[in-house]
Amino acid sequence: MPRRTDQLKLGAFLANSGHHVAAWRHPLAQADASQDFEHFKHIAETAERGKLDALFIADVVGLWGHHYDALSRTARAEHFEPLTLMAALAAVTEHIGLIATATTTYNEPYHIARKFASLDHLSKGRAAWNVVTSVVSDEAWNFGREQHVEHGDRYQRAEEFVEVVKGLWDSWDDDAFVRDKDSGVYFDVQRLHTLNHRGEHFSVRGPLNVARAPQGHPVLVQAGASEAGRTLAARIAEVIFASSSEVPAAQAFYRDIKQRAAAFGRDPDTVKILPGVTPFIADTREQAQALFEEFQALIDPVLGLRLLADTLGDDIDLSGHDLDGPLPPTPAGQRGSRRDKVLELARSENLSIRQLYLRLAGGNPVIGTAEDVADTFEAWFEARACDGFNVFFPYFPGAIDTFVDQVIPLLQQRGLFRLNYEGQTLRENLGLPRPGNRFSDVGARP
Amino acid sequence: MPRRTDQLKLGAFLANSGHHVAAWRHPLAQADASQDFEHFKHIAETAERGKLDALFIADVVGLWGHHYDALSRTARAEHFEPLTLMAALAAVTEHIGLIATATTTYNEPYHIARKFASLDHLSKGRAAWNVVTSVVSDEAWNFGREQHVEHGDRYQRAEEFVEVVKGLWDSWDDDAFVRDKDSGVYFDVQRLHTLNHRGEHFSVRGPLNVARAPQGHPVLVQAGASEAGRTLAARIAEVIFASSSEVPAAQAFYRDIKQRAAAFGRDPDTVKILPGVTPFIADTREQAQALFEEFQALIDPVLGLRLLADTLGDDIDLSGHDLDGPLPPTPAGQRGSRRDKVLELARSENLSIRQLYLRLAGGNPVIGTAEDVADTFEAWFEARACDGFNVFFPYFPGAIDTFVDQVIPLLQQRGLFRLNYEGQTLRENLGLPRPGNRFSDVGARP
Ligand SMILES: Cc1cc2nc3c(=O)[nH]c(=O)nc-3n(C[C@H](O)[C@H](O)[C@H](O)COP(=O)(O)O)c2cc1C
Ligand SMILES: Cc1cc2nc3c(=O)[nH]c(=O)nc-3n(C[C@H](O)[C@H](O)[C@H](O)COP(=O)(O)O)c2cc1C
Repeated sequence: MPRRTDQLKLGAFLANSGHHVAAWRHPLAQADASQDFEHFKHIAETAERGKLDALFIADVVGLWGHHYDALSRTARAEHFEPLTLMAALAAVTEHIGLIATATTTYNEPYHIARKFASLDHLSKGRAAWNVVTSVVSDEAWNFGREQHVEHGDRYQRAEEFVEVVKGLWDSWDDDAFVRDKDSGVYFDVQRLHTLNHRGEHFSVRGPLNVARAPQGHPVLVQAGASEAGRTLAARIAEVIFASSSEVPAAQAFYRDIKQRAAAFGRDPDTVKILPGVTPFIADTREQAQALFEEFQALIDPVLGLRLLADTLGDDIDLSGHDLDGPLPPTPAGQRGSRRDKVLELARSENLSIRQLYLRLAGGNPVIGTAEDVADTFEAWFEARACDGFNVFFPYFPGAIDTFVDQVIPLLQQRGLFRLNYEGQTLRENLGLPRPGNRFSDVGARP
Repeated sequence: MPRRTDQLKLGAFLANSGHHVAAWRHPLAQADASQDFEHFKHIAETAERGKLDALFIADVVGLWGHHYDALSRTARAEHFEPLTLMAALAAVTEHIGLIATATTTYNEPYHIARKFASLDHLSKGRAAWNVVTSVVSDEAWNFGREQHVEHGDRYQRAEEFVEVVKGLWDSWDDDAFVRDKDSGVYFDVQRLHTLNHRGEHFSVRGPLNVARAPQGHPVLVQAGASEAGRTLAARIAEVIFASSSEVPAAQAFYRDIKQRAAAFGRDPDTVKILPGVTPFIADTREQAQALFEEFQALIDPVLGLRLLADTLGDDIDLSGHDLDGPLPPTPAGQRGSRRDKVLELARSENLSIRQLYLRLAGGNPVIGTAEDVADTFEAWFEARACDGFNVFFPYFPGAIDTFVDQVIPLLQQRGLFRLNYEGQTLRENLGLPRPGNRFSDVGARP
């Protein structure tokens, strides 16, 4: 395959004290980061110094589960609400994209269209929306339901939701606001469009009370893995978070999504696929491995067993079993399910219970020197396993400084990463086209 | 009556180019302010320089009506979404309170509780929520309804909504997050409280995924005028926006609200009543009057007639009538209604159609020198017609500079206004107590 001529796209995943589940306990991590805006400001400034494409923040509209014994060992029970945090960060940054998560399952399209359009104006074109359909079942309880509606229905609602939001974003032509002091005409009525949407899940008239966004539409991001999730991603997403940890699986996902996007009539190059990766970096490989082990050692068994139960299911009772012994006999899950894969992993590598939960908690680490991390990035990129990465920093603030100071220069030297931001907007930096207006641009697709 | 020993509380009302409906056309106003964060940042910094208590931003989740011929003569069709704007302003200010409006009619309590708690953390204790029930009927169309539910039902929903939000704000004790790196305990499970609300309008389990706010609860603001509105205000509001334009009516409203608050077992001093006022300031009274007239002259008749129709009702057709002649014969409205009052005003002062709509558009102006404005503020305050003012600036940015440079020093010289912020939080500056936690503080009322 010829070498690629484009460059890596890199996102930085925001998390309180870091991405590692026990990060907050490590001496290098700031434990009380969750309520400290200055902490997030420092991360944002560092990411911008490194010319990263975007900051990303995940979201759950509730706690991450109700097993408080385990949850209380993590820094996940409290966090800034994504849109307010990103708006605040917009005011103290200039170039970096701001990807905020919001669920279509427990929101209304008018609010979401407005908030992201507003963020796009506040940031002069740096807003993006990570469209999710909610995974943590506890969220339902906060919105008058006993459980989520079924997975397929959530995706159907999501598809209509996004359609409505995009329609609302086209409420005004880019030049609708003429603001002519002499004639007294502030906007041209002809350049205002009323959506009048009536669908299965929503009736939304519009128009939106925010001018068309600097980016036309804020960038759309998605991370679905199921059939329905991939279909939605291929149809609407411009950035896709993936969770592959091996090159062949990542290549297969990459090909699949790009083909699906093409089948929807889209240019596959305008769909950027970014797997998540957690770099543990030190001056030598041994030191990096030791650093990783330090974090792993901080995982309390109560938490470790909960991570296992979340994957295997609560029907398996591991209490009373020796953590350093094998899993008890366990019925397999559905073919291809995550339970099935984890049981297979334990069996094939002969892992103890502790080894197994540590493997789950470790995620998708790249452990080594800055050079090793740059090599891994290059190999994945050139193998067309990705268009870049969503970088999970194991701890904050130090890990992003190390990444920006040591890995970014290597990527730049190899021509794999930008020396300066290409444009003002996130779209320009990602190399994505600015969408036309469905109401007034000939050829613009809804 | 003895002179008061407390001091004025002052809020600054944010609006794109200014509060006057035709402000944007005036040479002194910035016409394209609506999409310019720097503009709002300058206003916020100026207000903070003047030691004002808070910035306030109104909200409608839709356009302000669908009479586009009139709407297109105003700067009201597009504006930043309040919570994103306030979060961005939080990042560039240190002391000033941030009052954002959100309607209970088209929102969910969990989202609102979270966003305001998040804003309170971002701003280190400066958030406030202006609770409204929606007035502009077009809002319904954006949320799957043909019209608002009935006024009384909206207030019932509002009451339950606020109850749920306050309960969610007490999800965590102030000291719940112990973050003990050694033991690995991030929060104390005993200090986490689950609301389990099941009511007529909402079922919300909780807990909130944001730590207890620096202020305990963000400050609650309300502006209801009806019987149901006043009851809600007296029950829950800590700051109340009023719209009286004469001292006697303002005194009556003030007494009424304070008595109602006392009847709910509240200390009336912890309910601050702020009428709105629009100061037109110049070096002489004549110049101030001329300035006011300049703005009035910029009101296009299409807009003026729409303001009349919004008040009198669309059953009165004024097209074809001489603007400088009298109103055509018009059936009176309900006793005490706004229509009734406006018809009475036209009759008693013998106003032409144009004079009448100009009177409506003029609002509640105080026209004169800085000294005149300070005198008016002092007279209202000492007459116990208010605890301060919600200041509407006719145009931006200049009018707030004038106010801060000329009126504030006079109020300070008279001992009527602070020389420095009293504390870090909005509560501290307003002299409001920090609420206890309903779950864990003995004597704390829900
Ligand atoms: C990097 C990444 C970030 C994600 N962030 C969120 C999130 O913030 N909130 C959420 O509810 N789901 C999140 N998800 C879950 C996905 O939206 C999606 O539900 C999941 O990948 C399973 O796919 P499926 O929904 O198609 O079954 C994330 C997934 C990935 C890989
Ligand atoms: C200063 C002021 C600001 C207001 N801001 C809003 C607002 O932003 N959004 C809204 O829907 N209503 C707003 N209102 C309307 C009030 O919430 C209330 O609906 C109105 O005063 C009529 O009272 P009632 O609802 O008790 O009949 C405001 C009123 C005043 C006096």
